[in-house]
Amino acid sequence: MDILNSILTFIDYNFYISLFATIPEHVDTDTDTSLVLSSILLSLVIIYFASKLGGEICARIDLPPVLGELVGGVTIGISILGLLVFPEGMNTANNSLIMRFLQFSADVTPENIQTIFNSQGEIISILSELGVIILLFEIGLESNLKELISVGPQSVMVAIVGVVAPFVLGTLGLTYLFHVDIIPSIFAGAALTATSIGITAKVLAELGHLSSQEGQIIIGAAVLDDILGIIVLAVVASLIKTGQVEIFNIAYLSLSAAIFLIGAIFIGRLLHPVYVKLVNKMKTRGQLLLISLCFAFVLSYIAQIIHLETILGSFAAGLVLAETEKRKELQDVIAPISDIFVPIFFVCVGAKTDLSVLNPTDPNNREGLILAGFLILVAIIGKIISGFTIIGQPELNKLAIGVGMIPRGEVGLVFVGVGSASGILSKPIEASIIVMVIFTTFLAPLLLRSILKEPFLATQKQKIT
Amino acid sequence: MDILNSILTFIDYNFYISLFATIPEHVDTDTDTSLVLSSILLSLVIIYFASKLGGEICARIDLPPVLGELVGGVTIGISILGLLVFPEGMNTANNSLIMRFLQFSADVTPENIQTIFNSQGEIISILSELGVIILLFEIGLESNLKELISVGPQSVMVAIVGVVAPFVLGTLGLTYLFHVDIIPSIFAGAALTATSIGITAKVLAELGHLSSQEGQIIIGAAVLDDILGIIVLAVVASLIKTGQVEIFNIAYLSLSAAIFLIGAIFIGRLLHPVYVKLVNKMKTRGQLLLISLCFAFVLSYIAQIIHLETILGSFAAGLVLAETEKRKELQDVIAPISDIFVPIFFVCVGAKTDLSVLNPTDPNNREGLILAGFLILVAIIGKIISGFTIIGQPELNKLAIGVGMIPRGEVGLVFVGVGSASGILSKPIEASIIVMVIFTTFLAPLLLRSILKEPFLATQKQKIT
Repeated sequence: MDILNSILTFIDYNFYISLFATIPEHVDTDTDTSLVLSSILLSLVIIYFASKLGGEICARIDLPPVLGELVGGVTIGISILGLLVFPEGMNTANNSLIMRFLQFSADVTPENIQTIFNSQGEIISILSELGVIILLFEIGLESNLKELISVGPQSVMVAIVGVVAPFVLGTLGLTYLFHVDIIPSIFAGAALTATSIGITAKVLAELGHLSSQEGQIIIGAAVLDDILGIIVLAVVASLIKTGQVEIFNIAYLSLSAAIFLIGAIFIGRLLHPVYVKLVNKMKTRGQLLLISLCFAFVLSYIAQIIHLETILGSFAAGLVLAETEKRKELQDVIAPISDIFVPIFFVCVGAKTDLSVLNPTDPNNREGLILAGFLILVAIIGKIISGFTIIGQPELNKLAIGVGMIPRGEVGLVFVGVGSASGILSKPIEASIIVMVIFTTFLAPLLLRSILKEPFLATQKQKIT
Repeated sequence: MDILNSILTFIDYNFYISLFATIPEHVDTDTDTSLVLSSILLSLVIIYFASKLGGEICARIDLPPVLGELVGGVTIGISILGLLVFPEGMNTANNSLIMRFLQFSADVTPENIQTIFNSQGEIISILSELGVIILLFEIGLESNLKELISVGPQSVMVAIVGVVAPFVLGTLGLTYLFHVDIIPSIFAGAALTATSIGITAKVLAELGHLSSQEGQIIIGAAVLDDILGIIVLAVVASLIKTGQVEIFNIAYLSLSAAIFLIGAIFIGRLLHPVYVKLVNKMKTRGQLLLISLCFAFVLSYIAQIIHLETILGSFAAGLVLAETEKRKELQDVIAPISDIFVPIFFVCVGAKTDLSVLNPTDPNNREGLILAGFLILVAIIGKIISGFTIIGQPELNKLAIGVGMIPRGEVGLVFVGVGSASGILSKPIEASIIVMVIFTTFLAPLLLRSILKEPFLATQKQKIT
């Protein structure tokens, strides 16, 4: 990064720009819009490059490609190259090599560049959110509602144990072994409960394991975990704010989640014939795709405004449409959409991860790293236990189910954000949670890959790569 | 609009929100990001709904669907329903029904809503720009470079006459017949030179006429017109600013356009084998799509920073990749991408069109409408002449070629924006240019449809609908 920086600083680009000084600087009125567009084009090219390079390397050394996309994101992000940087924390346009390159190649004033930097960060973040919405829609489409319901009890068990076990172990351990205050301990315990459904689902899809029984249990449990995570976060947040647990919140969130999921599936099923008829009657291009996406977006919107998560909405939409005769056709047209949006999500998760907390030579990091070691242990054990709570069914790979629940991913980072904003977390605790999130996120695909590497995959893999 | 407004105002939504007051307002830290995401989801649903409803109605009454998308955009835009409104001119969040609905359904403070309104406008505009980039990439892919070169002389002729004729007729007419000052006359004349390649190309594609000889002449001429338009705008803008024409600008823009187009095609051809090899060697999903889009985005970026337009870059990228063996495969995967992005562009062009200048009962509009009548006449005649400059070749439908160049679309609106910002246009002149842009944009698809409605289309149409 230092080398690239000095090259850019070394070239006196004012000289270069002066060559074009007589050109009216962008003849259209919306200079800023066109420069923002330029920054988005650059960012997308870099994101796609990082995701494909990482993905291809991982595919060749027999690792899940999504891990490569995450590592690609870390490489271009704030931690290493500083190409894709978001206006969070202390970052300014100066920290972003994309912005410096834009300043170098187009003639942008220093005042404008900060505005463009903020817009670029916001737009790429929104595209990344659309990415995970579309990913969960696709996962919903590939899932089987009947199978999900039939493995429902197991999923519920895995989800509940996978939330309770790491929470209790983490909170008690921090309080009694490390003498951390009770409120930060509860918060760290809460952060241990999350599961990143996006990362788990993507790895399962890559391994061709999404529709296996284990896969469906994991997906069901991960969806429930997402709901439980929202409830846990709401509870912990109100505990921090008011010092007490508001029963009304818990009841409201649980009830709205239940009503939403059941309602969406029930009403969606009623609308099946209308949907199929509408798609068949329409004569213009892209009708299947647009109607289906509108359905997914409406459910995402509703989920968001009732304080759930958008991805629950798009997952429900996918599940419902998977039951129609249009499933196959829809999967075909959604695949390219997913191909361009989903990498933005994974690369952004990587790019937003700040690895500096991992540096053991910095004495400020040591306490955090020791705590992190403990949290990682609990994070892994707590979720693996959950897999073994399924009684009987010796044919099930219970270890795989537990391991599938390990990655905390972006959900874990949301907890860090809330904790950081509340001011109750000490630096070492905050760092330890971040390290735990990073480790579990990157470790889980590796573990899942090695556990699920069974002979029958040889044929399955052909299909998805 | 009044009815909808009063319903929203009537319901005391504060009461409704108070029910949820005990819920911590969005438990994650980035409240704004999640609300912006909500507004984007809502906007996309409304855009897709408007585009499909308009498109389907037009398809059924045998009009080009793209006209329906434009009309759908006008309907939801500032002129009629006020659903999709952009933060331009005097508009605030209060003018946007989407924002009012968001305020009603989620709990947003009045201060936040303006920020969200601005972000939503910017993000939808960027998505719309990506839409026209992808449209031109697809048009490039469907074009035939050899055919374009072979009809090159005709295209050059059509483009030059189509720029000179309306410019001279418009400027002289306004000065001598209507006694308008010379500078505003020149500006209005310049605005008459534009051609909206997006709208023309889309209509041709819908009629299955893109690869016909007429289609290729129109596309070639429209691309050249785009370059000529940039040059004309730069010249007029510097004329307004400094009172003189800067030869250096003209030379620079012409040269960079020539070098860019020839260079992109030449270098692109050299890279063919690398491209095909890369796509074949890659093992992860979506590799063909992402590599191709990266190529298109890089060329768009370069075109933009050398003061040309992004769409020239993506068109060149499409042309180059059309020559590889991957063409068919790429067309298949780009189609869904185009289906979700392109409607955003057309609906936004419609939504940003302010029809209030068309109201003849407003006495302030009358002078503008009279001037507009003249400009529309010149706009149509000037372009139709250009088609008949092609010598010989009686088999060519020369009327269709001229008519294909008529729509001014978003390019015309850029001229209005520049003129408006410079302050040299009187209200009636500005209004007359807007009316001319609206009329030509909406009229051209209709005319083209009726002229090109030939028997052989019956089979062609099957393919594209």
